[in-house]
This record gives sequence, structure tokens and C-alpha cells, in this order.
Amino acid sequence: MALKTWQEYLESIRDDRKVYVDGKRIKDVTRDHPGLKRLAALCASDYMLAQDPRYHDLLVEKVDGEEVHFVLVPPRTADDLMRRRQIIQITARICLGAPGGAKFTGIDGLNGVAVVSRRMDKQLGTNYVERFEDYRKFCHQTDPAMALAMTDVKGDRSLHPSRQKAHQDYYLRIVDRRSDGIMVRGCKIHISMAPCCNEMIVLPCRAMGEEDKDYAVAFALPIDTEGITMIGNADSGVHAMVVFDDVFVPRERVFLDGEWQFAGELVYMFGNYHRLSADAYKYMQLEIMVGLAALMAEYNGLENTSHVRDKLAWLAMYAEGTEALGKAAAQNCVIDPESGLAYPNITYSNVAKFFFADNYHQAEKYLQDITGGIAATLPSPADLENPDTAPMI
Amino acid sequence: MALKTWQEYLESIRDDRKVYVDGKRIKDVTRDHPGLKRLAALCASDYMLAQDPRYHDLLVEKVDGEEVHFVLVPPRTADDLMRRRQIIQITARICLGAPGGAKFTGIDGLNGVAVVSRRMDKQLGTNYVERFEDYRKFCHQTDPAMALAMTDVKGDRSLHPSRQKAHQDYYLRIVDRRSDGIMVRGCKIHISMAPCCNEMIVLPCRAMGEEDKDYAVAFALPIDTEGITMIGNADSGVHAMVVFDDVFVPRERVFLDGEWQFAGELVYMFGNYHRLSADAYKYMQLEIMVGLAALMAEYNGLENTSHVRDKLAWLAMYAEGTEALGKAAAQNCVIDPESGLAYPNITYSNVAKFFFADNYHQAEKYLQDITGGIAATLPSPADLENPDTAPMI
Amino acid sequence: MALKTWQEYLESIRDDRKVYVDGKRIKDVTRDHPGLKRLAALCASDYMLAQDPRYHDLLVEKVDGEEVHFVLVPPRTADDLMRRRQIIQITARICLGAPGGAKFTGIDGLNGVAVVSRRMDKQLGTNYVERFEDYRKFCHQTDPAMALAMTDVKGDRSLHPSRQKAHQDYYLRIVDRRSDGIMVRGCKIHISMAPCCNEMIVLPCRAMGEEDKDYAVAFALPIDTEGITMIGNADSGVHAMVVFDDVFVPRERVFLDGEWQFAGELVYMFGNYHRLSADAYKYMQLEIMVGLAALMAEYNGLENTSHVRDKLAWLAMYAEGTEALGKAAAQNCVIDPESGLAYPNITYSNVAKFFFADNYHQAEKYLQDITGGIAATLPSPADLENPDTAPMI
Amino acid sequence: MALKTWQEYLESIRDDRKVYVDGKRIKDVTRDHPGLKRLAALCASDYMLAQDPRYHDLLVEKVDGEEVHFVLVPPRTADDLMRRRQIIQITARICLGAPGGAKFTGIDGLNGVAVVSRRMDKQLGTNYVERFEDYRKFCHQTDPAMALAMTDVKGDRSLHPSRQKAHQDYYLRIVDRRSDGIMVRGCKIHISMAPCCNEMIVLPCRAMGEEDKDYAVAFALPIDTEGITMIGNADSGVHAMVVFDDVFVPRERVFLDGEWQFAGELVYMFGNYHRLSADAYKYMQLEIMVGLAALMAEYNGLENTSHVRDKLAWLAMYAEGTEALGKAAAQNCVIDPESGLAYPNITYSNVAKFFFADNYHQAEKYLQDITGGIAATLPSPADLENPDTAPMI
Repeated sequence: MALKTWQEYLESIRDDRKVYVDGKRIKDVTRDHPGLKRLAALCASDYMLAQDPRYHDLLVEKVDGEEVHFVLVPPRTADDLMRRRQIIQITARICLGAPGGAKFTGIDGLNGVAVVSRRMDKQLGTNYVERFEDYRKFCHQTDPAMALAMTDVKGDRSLHPSRQKAHQDYYLRIVDRRSDGIMVRGCKIHISMAPCCNEMIVLPCRAMGEEDKDYAVAFALPIDTEGITMIGNADSGVHAMVVFDDVFVPRERVFLDGEWQFAGELVYMFGNYHRLSADAYKYMQLEIMVGLAALMAEYNGLENTSHVRDKLAWLAMYAEGTEALGKAAAQNCVIDPESGLAYPNITYSNVAKFFFADNYHQAEKYLQDITGGIAATLPSPADLENPDTAPMI
Repeated sequence: MALKTWQEYLESIRDDRKVYVDGKRIKDVTRDHPGLKRLAALCASDYMLAQDPRYHDLLVEKVDGEEVHFVLVPPRTADDLMRRRQIIQITARICLGAPGGAKFTGIDGLNGVAVVSRRMDKQLGTNYVERFEDYRKFCHQTDPAMALAMTDVKGDRSLHPSRQKAHQDYYLRIVDRRSDGIMVRGCKIHISMAPCCNEMIVLPCRAMGEEDKDYAVAFALPIDTEGITMIGNADSGVHAMVVFDDVFVPRERVFLDGEWQFAGELVYMFGNYHRLSADAYKYMQLEIMVGLAALMAEYNGLENTSHVRDKLAWLAMYAEGTEALGKAAAQNCVIDPESGLAYPNITYSNVAKFFFADNYHQAEKYLQDITGGIAATLPSPADLENPDTAPMI
Repeated sequence: MALKTWQEYLESIRDDRKVYVDGKRIKDVTRDHPGLKRLAALCASDYMLAQDPRYHDLLVEKVDGEEVHFVLVPPRTADDLMRRRQIIQITARICLGAPGGAKFTGIDGLNGVAVVSRRMDKQLGTNYVERFEDYRKFCHQTDPAMALAMTDVKGDRSLHPSRQKAHQDYYLRIVDRRSDGIMVRGCKIHISMAPCCNEMIVLPCRAMGEEDKDYAVAFALPIDTEGITMIGNADSGVHAMVVFDDVFVPRERVFLDGEWQFAGELVYMFGNYHRLSADAYKYMQLEIMVGLAALMAEYNGLENTSHVRDKLAWLAMYAEGTEALGKAAAQNCVIDPESGLAYPNITYSNVAKFFFADNYHQAEKYLQDITGGIAATLPSPADLENPDTAPMI
Repeated sequence: MALKTWQEYLESIRDDRKVYVDGKRIKDVTRDHPGLKRLAALCASDYMLAQDPRYHDLLVEKVDGEEVHFVLVPPRTADDLMRRRQIIQITARICLGAPGGAKFTGIDGLNGVAVVSRRMDKQLGTNYVERFEDYRKFCHQTDPAMALAMTDVKGDRSLHPSRQKAHQDYYLRIVDRRSDGIMVRGCKIHISMAPCCNEMIVLPCRAMGEEDKDYAVAFALPIDTEGITMIGNADSGVHAMVVFDDVFVPRERVFLDGEWQFAGELVYMFGNYHRLSADAYKYMQLEIMVGLAALMAEYNGLENTSHVRDKLAWLAMYAEGTEALGKAAAQNCVIDPESGLAYPNITYSNVAKFFFADNYHQAEKYLQDITGGIAATLPSPADLENPDTAPMI
């Protein structure tokens, strides 16, 4: 097997994973909670597109005669990065602007590890590259939905991980090293999509000092590994807190094990890739926002009112600027000398993020001006969330 | 009876009112829906404070030997407006920054009608003042929770009410005039607190032309009047859509009946008073926001970090500026020559609103910077909404 | 003599003062440089108003039977501060929005010293109050144009005055103490109006440590004192750099002499007063800006264009907000417990400043949008600066 | 002759041109007024660079065996637009961020006419292309400094050119048509660099209706043509008002003569090119601004202060964002189907302009925060403008 169907994907996440929302365990994440049901549909969209003849050539690549999802292949050119953008955007468009796709953030972690593992092997004589490429092959074969866990709960942010006072587990850490692997304990937060993924890549969340060695740890694990508990967030269940209660990671899935000098580099390189992903899907989010504003202006009979036209023009400008900067980051990419991987122009992709974020509240103000209060005080209809009547996607 | 206890208030809203949320009728708004339960508690706070010895002198005034809620008495001086501010602020503080008090918006409508009815009687020879003062006496005696319904659904906003094309009911209108009263039909939206009030004051929402005479209508009614249906909004149930399905209003509760020339003035004068109310409670909302930011900075060990201190200082400045402008509006009030009522300086209270709104998104940005993602991805606990374990207030 | 005429004022500044602009010494500051000529006219406006029957009662106060300029009298109530605002505003209006008046900043220094000298005498047993009140009497009798010199050149801003490395004179300091006075050396910058004043009050510009004792120095001197050189700034000559080349200050004009603990308080209290002055005249500056925008809109046939009307409304809101906050600062003033002097609400006057400054660039944008490029590329006419044809004011 | 030396250029502008500043005629614009002298040096920089071996290959292109300035050759690819950007940026860098180069805006007009003349010939059967290409050849041979005159004085902006009420000359117009050419009258404003150019291209400044035929006029003329008077602006003399007092334009230099349907298109296409030029040089202006801020931070000992570092980072981000968007506009250019000319992506180049302009005031605030008041109140030195001691460039 190489590519999953969306039915196989949904089946694959009906397992023993421990997911809690509102104090209750959710048995079947594809059915038993409206927010998680939506999340499963979001991830499924990725598998649907890959099977769709219209998008097959875009999303699927042949590697050694096997069909694999293109995003699992290391990007080597500006064109590869532009294709990654296109895949993200098509998926986000059918997901109504949400960062769709079952591998949205996980892939950025995968690419980050790909670049840094080569640097480590070269400087430290480790053999992370071989280990990591085995994991990539495993991904090619299983086509997993992949989450990325980075942010720790942190405690006192002015102190290093090993200097925290209340207790030692504010940052995820290695509590035991065994011949066949490591035991980890801690808690990661804001882990988007995790409750509906198959695999989770775990990275440190900051640069570290030598004293923080036990906190310098990266690895990959199946979501239903014993000891992992996910607590969905209050609003939708989507962005989970992930608790690692003495979880065992087998040696072949460990990608950082005390090499504290590379903790910061991993975070940074993941960020370089993730910025590109975020810039890409934001354009779709804004496309929908501009369309919604234009539609509401028509409904309200205001499409020719001067201040409404000014605001619609500004919104269009804002969306296109986000896209132009995202493109500039991909078109002017950097080729990593050791791994040969392409990553986006760091300055430009950060400017893209700034431009998006700096103007977002203004965009919301304009959208509210155009739509009026109804966007906030919409009366609630009968059974939007009824699991029996709501459509799959 | 003049002043209600909070228990009497809660009992008074357990009646036949028609309230729907998520397609289901809510039988007892004080118990059967978490959002409405919170709303009832919010309104109850007003009655609790009036009975509290610490606040009694502030909230309660003797009129003709009877104790009445101060806000039901017409304001005649800058000091009256300042006292109104203080009442709003004390109520909002114990309601965690929400515009607390069972009469928050209703009173502003009451004052608006008080000013304009005098102008009408003088110019048109009507006798609205007498009728309205009878209603005020009724309020003194029953101490009601009062909502204010103004915004219509509107349809095509470039057209007057009577020129709407799809149908005639985009704005609330008089569909029949009888000797003892009028029959009205239409729908008002964004009606805050209505599901838990006793009375509702209904005003037009815009200036009108002579052809819009049937839409120039204002009145007061009990919430549970036959033909009134309230549909709670998606998020919390609080801001309801109120449907008037051929509702009869007895003559003595009608405060505008076709006098189209005064429709705009009513809206405007209500707005003058309501701006003051909004400016007042926003200060409490910001007080809590600044406190939350400071607390989270401490939790995160960041209270001495330079950029965090800058942001906390800005937040404090923002809160105090909103307060200073609100005060300036009250201290430099206008005394209406005909009614003798005091209303806030219109320019200054609008600047107060602008200052609050213009900087609010910036404040949210800073709050998010300081608290981190946890404010958005908070894992959901067990039974915050359990009606049996959550405290009344 | 108590009040000067404007002719006497102009005569009084034709003395041996050393003023340089563009490398050339200006002999008569009232005639020989267009920028300084305008400055002299600006200061003269103050003396004209005091003699004008329409403004006499506002600007002039009887003290011990003598007429003195009201701003030289210590403010003791909110009404006094409101009157100070009014004087500043009337002067600024006839000076086209510039901070007019011959005592604009000097007075704020005078009030700052008045408050802090009492604290010093009480805590240290000094007799600065008596000395200072003698100086005030001298001002009552001579009605001087007064500048205020605070900002030093500073050098490395991360180091205290006494720790500067390149040399010792980055902050003004006492280089010699004699029985009859002190000798000071250093340089103050951005000293507005100094070239056309009679007196200059000199304050330190920051809090100091014990090691900075020689830098903790405050005093008053006539502008033409030997050793003082003023170098006008590039643009207009108005904001001078003032060099103190071993200048002698007689004992009775020294108001701080090594009491380093009070250096910061002096700066701070001067700032409290000066904020009020700045808030007050800014309203006039904005009044003129709004009027100019409205006038240009008319010239360009755009006064009914929707986006122009929006911008004019915003500009009016901005001007009124600045005024409302300035008023709030005066109306809610603090009465200093020791001196009995009134000073503005510190928070509110700082918010007033923030509101003005934060929106100023937006105001300029709107003004430019309305006026078009002509505001920046105005062709230069023949002899606006011809000293023989240009009117006095 | 094809390429001028800078000496030849300076000599070429010492002619009978009529230039006035401050009411006085400037005889030799290369010597007799400090602002114009600087402008001449700015334009000369273009000729110096073309002769400099380091830049020769970038700036100079062979056309039919003759060396011509590259910017006079029509751009046909994204690479051509990128090379145009590079030339503008190198020139602007040595001109301290000013839009250097003797052909800065003129070329954009040249390209605009090149595109639109083809459309006109195709749709109207005119022969403007041939006429225009003769003019281009003339430019190849004479290597002129070229200004572009577009903005009229306009009068009442709500009225079309032919409907102006006060008089008929608010927009430049044809007052007489003769067999060998046309006579024009009117006045253009904000004409940058004109006083030191050889040629001026004149375009209409707005879309027109049929009744405005006489205002639909475009042409090129030598600066010293009889009837042309230039009045330098108040600040520097650089942005001139250009008066056309019944000026004769020979037939072969007329590029629009009553074809009102194409007036708007000419403005628009000129704008497309000019946006690219402006985006390009702004990056250099910002590069210098960031460098100045960093230098002043060092002088003031503040380069490691947290808020200063934040501001420097923001400034760098701002500069790079402007550059990224400008690049995106060139890299994603449009190839005009008729003329084969490449012009920048219109949306992206407008976003680039927006991004620059929207953040510029913020950049100035930060620059002022870092440099302190000295940037505004710099004392004026002796003889910066002394024509005998100041260096040529």
C-alpha cells in the first residue's frame, strides 16, 4: 500500500487513541464530537484530492515505481516549493480556508529534521540521516496523517528548561535511556489536528544549553502509543494539549537525543518550512473573506457605495499582497548546501507573515463594517451539528 | 412593591416567553441553557446590588416616598450622569466586564423617549409625555429588567423601508390601527439580554420619510406578549433575534405612531445616552483585560521583561484614556432646554467610543503577545457548564 | 514696571546675546534673520494680548496691587489650570497654531521648581523656597520672555552623566563652586524660543545617582549672560543649541546645587506642567489643520465627496478628542499637599499626549489626501521673507 | 554622438531655459541655486555611471552598433524589468536614496507612449508608432535627461476639463491646430527634475470624455522651448510648476491629438511603469534609513537596548518587504500582446506601493525614537551650501 483512500484514512483513526474534550473521552473521533468530526473531514480532504483525477498529477509523485504523496518527497527546487504551495492552496480552498490536508504541519517538521540530521551527522559523526530516511520510507508506504508537536507548557519563561523551579516537567524531557530507546515525559500544547492524525513528530521548542541535554529530544510516534493523552481545546477540540506520561520511543524513531547544540536549529528550520505553509493557506482564507465581504455587500444593496468599494479594494489588495510575498519567498529560495533541500527565503517568508498578521485586524474591522452585526449575532439554526444530517464534507 | 429582590426577578422571568436556541425551545431561561443561565445571573446582579447595604445609597433613590432604582429617574445634572456611570461600572465589575445590570440598554431608550416625547407634544400637539410618564411610573412600581430593540433586518440598505422590493417586512411596521392600539409586524435583531428581561422598549432604527409613516413606530411591551418569539444567537443565546408576528400594542404603550419626522431623533437621542453607558462599562472590561495581562505576565515570569512592561503600560494607558473621555462626556453634558434632562456631550462621547474601538484590536494583540497561545487553545475542563455544580454567580 | 508692551519686549532682546545661524552671528534677532524675526513676532503676541482690552482680564492678574501676567502666578485650582489652557489657546490661535507666548515653556519650569523647592527645604533643610520666591518677584516686576533648557547632548545614553567616556561635558555640570555662586559648563539642545527670550531656566534632564552630584544643577539666568552662545537650528533658527562655556551663576539664582535625589523629581514635575501646555496648544494647531483641510476641499470642489467628508469628520474627531483629554487632565487635577499648587492629572495628560501623537501621522495623511501634492510642491513666491514688505505679525 | 559624458550633460543644460525660484530667475541651474545645483549633480550621476567601467555593462546596450543607455531600449522580458530595477537602485544608492538618474520618470512616459501608440494605430489607423519610434531614435542619439509632465492644476476636481467654470486653462489644452503642429496652453505641477532636464514628455493626467478632446494631448519638447517657464518649489526648487504660455509643438513630436478615448490609457500605462521605478528606488531610500537608524543607535550607546533592537528589526523587515514586493511585480510581469513590451504585474506593484506608503510614517516614528530630537533641531553649520567649497557630488 502506498496511498490511502479517504475511507481507509477514517478507518485508520478509529483506534484506541485517548482523546478528551469537556472532560469526556471521545471514543470515535470521526463521529462522537462535532468539532473532531469536522477535523477528520478536513484531513480526509487530502486523501480525496490525491485520488481525484483532476488533482492526481499535482499531489502524487512516483518514487521508485511507487506512488507517494508529493509532500513526502524532499523539495529540491523553487518549483518544488511552488508546487507545495499549490497543493496547500487547493486543499485549503475546499476546506473553506482552513489549513487543510492531513500532513499540513507534520511535513514541515519532516523537512526540518531532513536538513538538520545531515548537519548533525557531519559535525558529530552520528547516523541520524539513515534512521530518518528509514522513517521517510515508512511514511511513503503508510501515507499517514501527521501532526507536529513543538510548544511546551514552559512555566517561567525567563528560565531555561533545566532551571525551572516548580518541577522538572515544564518542557518535555528524557526520563530514562534504555538500549532500545528512550522514555519521555512532559506536555506539548496547541498541537493542531493531532486528535485525527496517525503520526506525530515531536521537536523541542527552543534553543538550549548543555545543562538542558535531557530536554533536547526529537522523535516520531504513532498517535495511539501508550501513555499519550490528548485533551481537546475548549472551542473546537482541534488544538490539543498532548500529555506524554512516560512514553517509550524506540531507538529507530529518535531524531535528537541530547545533542543540545542542534535543538535551536531544528526549531528554526521547521519554522522556515512552516512559514511557507502558513503563508500559502492564508491566501485562501483571505480569498474567502474577500468573497464573503463582496457577497454581503450585494445582499445589503451596498456594492456601489463608495466606502464599501474602498474597503473591498483594500481587502483584495491585502489578499494579493500576502500571495505576492509568499511567492517571492518560494521563488527566491535557498538551496541547503549539505542536504540539497530547498527552503524558502527566510526574510521574505517572515515579511509575508508580518504583512498578513499586521493587517488582519484591519481586515476583520472592514469585514464587520460591511457585513454588519449579523456576523456576530447570527441566530442559531436547528441541527447544523446533527451528526446524522450534516454532510460528510 | 417597588424594588425586586434577585429571587423575585428570577421568578418573574419564568413565564411563557418563547425563546429558541439551536432549534429547541428553552422552557426555563434561568436553568435550561448555559448561556441564558449566565445571562439571568448577569441581570440578577443588578437586583443583588440594590439590596446590598454597601451599594444601596448609590443605586436607590426615593421618589414620592417610594424607593426606586436610580436609573429609572430622569438625569438632570452632570452629577446624575456621573452617578449613572458609577452604577454601570460597579455592576460591570462584578459581571467580569460584561455590561451588567438588568436595565443596561433599556434605560437609554427610556431617556431617549423622555426627551423626544416633549418635543413632539410641543410641535405636534400630541400627548405622548403624559402617556410616557405613566409608563415610567409603572416601571418605578415594577422595577423591570428592560431590553431595547432597535435594529431591523433592513434588507437592501440603499432603499427606504417602504421601498424594499422583496417584501414589506424588512423593517418593523404597523399593519393595523385599532381604537385601542396598534398591530405590529417585523423582526428586530441583535437584541441583547432580551430573553431574560421583563419589558422591551422598541424604537425605529433610522430616519424616515413621509412614505415610511407605517414604519415610524415606538412602544413598550412585556417580553411574554403573545406573538413575540426570540431566537438566541449561535454563540451564547444572549443577542436575540426578536420576531413580531402581528403583535398587539395597547394605545397607552405606544410612543410613536406615524410621526415619521421624529423617527431619526429618537434613534439619535437613544444613541446619545447609550454611548455614555457603553463608554462606562468598557472601562471595566479593560480593567479586567489589563489585570489579566499583568497576571499572565507574572505566571510566565515575564513581568520585568522590557517589551512586556511596555505593553502593560500601553494597556493601562488605553483603559485610562477610555475612562477620561467618558468622564469628559458626562462632565461637559448638555441640558435639554425642553425636558430639562441632561445628556452627555455628543462629540466627546463619540470620541470616547472611537478611542475605545480604534485601539481595541491593538489591545487584543498585546494581550495575546503576553498570554501566549493558551488563551486561544485552552483545553476544556470537565463541567464548567454543569448546571448542578456551577455557582449561581 | 510690571507688564511690558510689545515694543518694550522687542527692544529688550536687542542686546549683546550671541546667536549664530548658518555660521553667521545674528546681530539683531528682531530683524536680521527671517526665522528669528518670526520668532520675535510670536513672542511679542503675548505682550500684545495682555494689553488688548478684550483679553486683558484673562491674561492679567493683580498681585499686591501690581498687574502681573497671570501665568506667573502659581496655579492653585482646576479653574486656574483651565485659565492657563485658555491663555495658551488664544495665543496659539493668533500664532497660527504655533506654541505662542513669550513664556510658553519657561513657566512650566517655574512651576516645577515651585513644587520641588518646597519638598527639598522640608527634607533637606535648605532654603530654596525663599530664593525661588525672590526670583518669582523679579519675574513679576520684569515680565520676561522665558525659555526652558533641559535636554543635554547626552553622549552614550546607556551611561550615567559621570560615567561618560569621551569627556565629562555631555551633561551640563558644575565645574567650580564659589562663595557667591557656581560656574557651569556644558551644552543644552532643542531649546525652543531661547534666541528671543530674556530669561532662561535651566534644569537637569534625568534622574541621577550620588556620583552625578555635579550634574544635579538648576538655575535661572538672563539670556545675554557672558559665556552663553546659541546656535540656531538648520530649519528655522528657532530651536537652539545653547552652549555654556564656563558661565557664572550667582548664588541667588541657583535652585539645585548637588541635591541629586531631586534631579529626577524636577524633570518629572516640569513634565507634568508642560504636558498640559502642549495638550492645550495642540488643539489650536489641529483646529487650523481641520480648517485648512475643509478649505482646500472646497477649493478643489470636493467638499461633498464621500471619502473627503469621512476624512474631515475624522480630523474633527481627532481635534476634539485632544481637547477633551486635555480638559479632563485639568478638571481632574492634583493639589500638591506641600506647596498647595495644582498640577494636571498625570495619567490623563499623558493619554492626551499619546492620543495626539498616535494619530498625528494619520491626520497628515488625510490632510495630504485632501490637499493633494500642492502642499508639498508649492512654487515659491517672490518676497515673503523680505523684511521690508512682510508685516510685523 | 550616442552617450553623453557628465560634463557634456552639465554643459547641455546651461541654455536659455526660464527657471524661477523665490521670484528670481536662475541663470545657470548648475551653479546659481543650491537646490538646483544638487539636482544637476543628481542627474549627472547617471552619466557618470554609464561611463564607469564597473557599471558600463549594466547601463549600456548596443543597438544597431551604437551604444545607447539601456533604459531607452524597450523592455521585453522579466529580466529586462529586473535590470531596469537594478539600474535605478544603483543610481539611487549613490544619490543617497533620491530617485537619481537623469531619465527617472521620463522613461516611464516613453514606455507608456510606446504601448499605447500601437493600440491607437491599430484601432484608429493613425501612424503614431512611426512618429514615436523616430523620437526614440532621436533619444538614442542625444541621450537626454528627460522629465515627465502629467499633473494639471485641475481647478474643481468634480468637473471635467472642459466643464471648468473659472476659466478654460485648468488643464493643458490645444488652443490652435496648424498644418505643422499644435499650439498648447496650460500649466503642469509637481514636475520633478524638470529644471535640469533636456527633454520633457507631456501626458494628460486623467480619463476624458469626447467634449474634452482639446485636452487630450501628449507630446515631447526640449525644456528650453519658447513659452515654457518653470517655477521651482519653495523647499528645494526641484519639483517645478511648468507654465505653457502658447507653446508650439511640431507635428512630429505630437503623440496624442484629440484621441480622447486613449487619454486614460496613457495615464494608466505610464503609471504601470512608474510604479516599478518608484518601488525600486524606495528600497534604497529605506536601506539608508535603516543604516542611519543603526548608526545613531550606536552613537547613542543604544544598539543593544531591547526596544531599539525591535525597532531596527522592524525597519529592516519594512525595507525587505518593499523589495520583495517590487521583485514580485517584475518577476510576474505582463507581456503586452500588441507591442511585445513587458510591464510589471499591476496588482503586485500597487501592493508594493501600498506597503511602502502605509508603513512609512511608522518608519519615521521609529527613526525619530532612535535618533532623538537632534534629527529635527540640528544646529546649522557654516557653509554646507557654499558653491565654492561643496564638492560636485
